Amino acid sequence: MTAISELRVNGDRLWGRLEEMARIGATPAGGVHRLALSDEDRRARDLFRAWAESLCLAVSVDGIGNMFARRDGTAAAADGRPPLVLGSHLDSQPTGGRFDGPLGVLAALEVVETLEEHGVRTALPIEVVNWTNEEGARFPPAMMGSGAFSGRFALADALGVTDADGVTVSDAIDRIGYRGALPVGGRPLAAALELHIEQGPILEENGCEVGVVTGVQGARWFDLTIAGEEAHAGSTPLSRRTDPVAVFGRFLVDAYRRIERDFAPHGRLTFGVLAAEPASRNTVPGRVTVSVDLRHPDDSTLDDMEEGLREAANRACLERGAAWRLDDVWRSPPVRFSDRCIDAVRAAADLCGYASMPMVAGAGHDSVHTNDVAPTGMIFVPCEDGISHNEAENITPAQAEAGANVLLHAALGLVEPPPADMLSAPTNQPGGAA
Amino acid sequence: MTAISELRVNGDRLWGRLEEMARIGATPAGGVHRLALSDEDRRARDLFRAWAESLCLAVSVDGIGNMFARRDGTAAAADGRPPLVLGSHLDSQPTGGRFDGPLGVLAALEVVETLEEHGVRTALPIEVVNWTNEEGARFPPAMMGSGAFSGRFALADALGVTDADGVTVSDAIDRIGYRGALPVGGRPLAAALELHIEQGPILEENGCEVGVVTGVQGARWFDLTIAGEEAHAGSTPLSRRTDPVAVFGRFLVDAYRRIERDFAPHGRLTFGVLAAEPASRNTVPGRVTVSVDLRHPDDSTLDDMEEGLREAANRACLERGAAWRLDDVWRSPPVRFSDRCIDAVRAAADLCGYASMPMVAGAGHDSVHTNDVAPTGMIFVPCEDGISHNEAENITPAQAEAGANVLLHAALGLVEPPPADMLSAPTNQPGGAA
Repeated sequence: MTAISELRVNGDRLWGRLEEMARIGATPAGGVHRLALSDEDRRARDLFRAWAESLCLAVSVDGIGNMFARRDGTAAAADGRPPLVLGSHLDSQPTGGRFDGPLGVLAALEVVETLEEHGVRTALPIEVVNWTNEEGARFPPAMMGSGAFSGRFALADALGVTDADGVTVSDAIDRIGYRGALPVGGRPLAAALELHIEQGPILEENGCEVGVVTGVQGARWFDLTIAGEEAHAGSTPLSRRTDPVAVFGRFLVDAYRRIERDFAPHGRLTFGVLAAEPASRNTVPGRVTVSVDLRHPDDSTLDDMEEGLREAANRACLERGAAWRLDDVWRSPPVRFSDRCIDAVRAAADLCGYASMPMVAGAGHDSVHTNDVAPTGMIFVPCEDGISHNEAENITPAQAEAGANVLLHAALGLVEPPPADMLSAPTNQPGGAA
Repeated sequence: MTAISELRVNGDRLWGRLEEMARIGATPAGGVHRLALSDEDRRARDLFRAWAESLCLAVSVDGIGNMFARRDGTAAAADGRPPLVLGSHLDSQPTGGRFDGPLGVLAALEVVETLEEHGVRTALPIEVVNWTNEEGARFPPAMMGSGAFSGRFALADALGVTDADGVTVSDAIDRIGYRGALPVGGRPLAAALELHIEQGPILEENGCEVGVVTGVQGARWFDLTIAGEEAHAGSTPLSRRTDPVAVFGRFLVDAYRRIERDFAPHGRLTFGVLAAEPASRNTVPGRVTVSVDLRHPDDSTLDDMEEGLREAANRACLERGAAWRLDDVWRSPPVRFSDRCIDAVRAAADLCGYASMPMVAGAGHDSVHTNDVAPTGMIFVPCEDGISHNEAENITPAQAEAGANVLLHAALGLVEPPPADMLSAPTNQPGGAA
């Protein structure tokens, strides 16, 4: 007999699945290359489906490839009850880490397997979700599948997005065989929980095992173009050039200075993609284009940061007679999660005896979108040196296990009615009817 | 009866050919996109061949696609006399101008047609040359065909160079049908002359119609890599990042400051190609790579400039704990042309009554390579605002004509023996036996 409060996941099993998943698209440096809707993504999906089906979960796929592995609620509850959704994503950055995404999906699977093993039935159905294209690295924007589900993105728009080779999301989904019959979104969720690595250094620095995520900072994406004048690299004196690379250098120094000076410690400024045109060694470029990623937990501060960037661009260009423009690519306002979910996560961490702290997520997550349509919460666990979006991304088995235990108990806190507190021996073995 | 000294080219005919050539690969902005060994290059070659054959020149092509259109010398001179070579190139930058290259080839054709029209026979054969892949924009390095001819580049190495899509020079030559039977180089040239636009502002600023080019400044090409640490754009505080883009900004400001302060007016510094890896919007790049093009007429000053770049990279990286490396890609030491050719060009400008000045070429040219195997000289004409490697590149018909007249008389000054000074009516019409 096990008290519900003493229920714990099987950390070894979870770790084994994380390791097996990390072999798909594994890079020599220990990371993964598993871009959304690639062959690697297909293999990751196949593996997830196989594991889910071995637990007798019913796997369905919607029209943008989001996968839902469902464990029905108790018979007492009518079939129409909305599910509690637990999960994250299996796609990765081009040179990504092994835990960003898969931890949330595989911990959710582990939660379901733990409930199965101990014969715990819940009134609400539970669905383990793998959202399509969270990273947005191949097909921008990020968090595409959950955004289509929530209605933030029009489905047709999302399916029409192309990668650098001109392949559409729609074609890529068909190519890997993951266009499902389920409509995209349009159905209620009881709540949504996502376990994720922090992808920053804060939990580690504070000696906490669990982050109780209260929301997500706002993000703004832009394309900055600096236009100068193409010229011959050999015969045009520097004094006669309008060299956009020289302007870009001055802009960079000024922009970083402003953000570091005025918006520390929460302001974030990232230039992830750089290009010069026409990209010839012996031609002074006519233009430099660069992606801009600006983040802060407060929306009006984001306004100030954006204004600072514009001033920096203005100043750098004025000095050299260049021109600039800043094109909006994507905006994600700061998000506040549901108090009920936040409380469930905090209570679960306390129940399990983990040191926790409240925090605002620095990264966007699928939970930003589920928060639009259902009470949503997130759980963070530390990652080594705060490193993520990097092949060196790392966590320990104990950290993964702690996160999954909090996910388990936060989920149990959200299913209604709560299961009886005392359990008999397992009534359902894995492989039995779910 | 026309005195040889009064011979002049037909400027309208030259301009008409320049305009017709500019339609091949024409861009909406008035420039040309005619990358080496592309379909556009093939069409430019076909047109050049057709014009040459209409003048009864014998066109031969060598194993790297260099094209030679030959007008034989007088019967009195044995067939084995080495030719005077006049020409330049027909390929362009990705967004190049209409005159960089074609002016030299088509003016050489005009020189030959002028000699034909006036029945001027020369002792030495004259060959109009179109060198393969002068720009190096698709297949680095630049000046490939002339470099293979002179022996500066091993033929097999040049043929094995690949473009960004992995296509080799060898395959591209075969695809457009321009691999000829003529051996590459290995035969003597009496001399080589190249007419080219200045690609800089100096002639225009000095009110000169002709530049007597005494040599070419040295150039060094490098790849600079700045290595930081990949991190998540949202969750990693700026203070915890080793962001190579921030380092790159500081490097740029310092590098331009050093070159502008210490090496004006002759020092040139160009960053033509920029990239960040892994090139994802929401990942702090792990590395920034950038092409470096450094030029100066004096080799020891180039040493100092290179040292300045290394110091700038060192300083920028030390501040942020990043690493850097500077890889050699290509070195071209400063070149001094043949006194005999320089004198012939100066005398030709004087004879025609053009204001001229001596100057050092800022750009590399095929003449750098012919200078290794034959007395070589160059003629510059101004271009509007000094703009080149740019679709806005422009010259006037009068400027083209002046350059071709100087090419004509410099060539006549180099053929031995000089033709008789008095001419009868034309003895050979275009289309007659050459």
